Amino acid sequence: MDVIRRFYNLYFSEDKELTERLKPILGFTPARISLFKTAFYHKSMTNETPGKPTNERLEYLGDAILSTIVAEYLFKKYPNKDEGFLTKMRSKIVKRQTLNEIADRMGLDVILSEYSMGKMSSAMLGNAFEALIGAIYIEFGYEKTKNYVIRNILMKYIDIIELETKDDNHKSILLEWCQKNGKEINFTTIAKFKLDKRDCFKVAVVVEGQEISTAEDFNKKSAEQTAASKAIELLKIPVTP
Amino acid sequence: MDVIRRFYNLYFSEDKELTERLKPILGFTPARISLFKTAFYHKSMTNETPGKPTNERLEYLGDAILSTIVAEYLFKKYPNKDEGFLTKMRSKIVKRQTLNEIADRMGLDVILSEYSMGKMSSAMLGNAFEALIGAIYIEFGYEKTKNYVIRNILMKYIDIIELETKDDNHKSILLEWCQKNGKEINFTTIAKFKLDKRDCFKVAVVVEGQEISTAEDFNKKSAEQTAASKAIELLKIPVTP
Repeated sequence: MDVIRRFYNLYFSEDKELTERLKPILGFTPARISLFKTAFYHKSMTNETPGKPTNERLEYLGDAILSTIVAEYLFKKYPNKDEGFLTKMRSKIVKRQTLNEIADRMGLDVILSEYSMGKMSSAMLGNAFEALIGAIYIEFGYEKTKNYVIRNILMKYIDIIELETKDDNHKSILLEWCQKNGKEINFTTIAKFKLDKRDCFKVAVVVEGQEISTAEDFNKKSAEQTAASKAIELLKIPVTP
Repeated sequence: MDVIRRFYNLYFSEDKELTERLKPILGFTPARISLFKTAFYHKSMTNETPGKPTNERLEYLGDAILSTIVAEYLFKKYPNKDEGFLTKMRSKIVKRQTLNEIADRMGLDVILSEYSMGKMSSAMLGNAFEALIGAIYIEFGYEKTKNYVIRNILMKYIDIIELETKDDNHKSILLEWCQKNGKEINFTTIAKFKLDKRDCFKVAVVVEGQEISTAEDFNKKSAEQTAASKAIELLKIPVTP
């Protein structure tokens, strides 16, 4: 009986602590705490407690919800901008690096490091953030989650003007890094084809003779930017904000 | 005065006709008919009436909404499946080809061909469908759009069991097509790197010495499937359902 009670108290107090920690972050008290607990349970921890559900399903759901909320937010904020601009702005907001930073600034790192017993990577932060959005959605539905994301995330952590004006010149960042590190770099057009009756270009970033990344676009410059952005991520080149 | 009236009647009757056409498709009468009209206005038609808003913004919004609705639907339908399965099922449902087919079966082709004055492509169908979802969302919000999509789209046009059991073996489809057409094909691993501390493979589909597509995945076989699927789309290889 004692054993059961001890376990009960252990989990009870663990739940209580998480509830207390989440309250200032969320601005409300989560009812289904087990759901929110799952949001912080990364798959790399399954070795310790096999069979326990990880945050991957919640992350999958949260990723979709977040993406749509941001899409709608931008759609309404910029009634006169075309879909190319909106898509670009959205990907700037929901990209992994931004999500990791937001999660860090929200203080999810503290909770996560406790759950992960120290084995934390920055990618786990973004995952937990998306999973948290998934949990909020399950508990409160679309409208409330939308209000939460707009008020507590977008308006708090995203400098929309900066994103708008900042030209993400990935190509020049990559060129600069290669020059600094004495690496030979080439942008090569490896294919040109028709898509939807329009010319489409496929370009590759080749560093030291090795193809690092490719990208396709109707515009060669845009394809180069996308390929450069991928290469920056793959080569783990630090980007100063 | 007559001229004004004639114009008024023309547009009035055009609106009326679209409303009548949409009623059986939607199951309700759209209030903001101009919004729904925009959903069928593809950018390729801007030559005829420059300055008129096209369906691109609505498509951007609808694409996000649809993707999230499908994500949530699968999340609830398969409580015990992992996020890999859910992601795969989702992309099977929201892929361009499926959307084009759904739009066709919904009868959007008839409306679209009138608006486009005959210059219709199958890609325009999928675009119009997504734009229509965007319009429904603006008019009715998330919950109602979700119910509409689940009842009138997913349960009506998507054979979930077939999608589940059907193995999309893109690689074998591509190999078969190349063999039939006497084309040399190779799947080559062009890079192996670490991502999130896991081995990641980048493979390329090379047909007749030309790189057609590439894909990255933690699993080489999955990367090959994705690259093959891209190649099938780029080479416009017909896929029998």
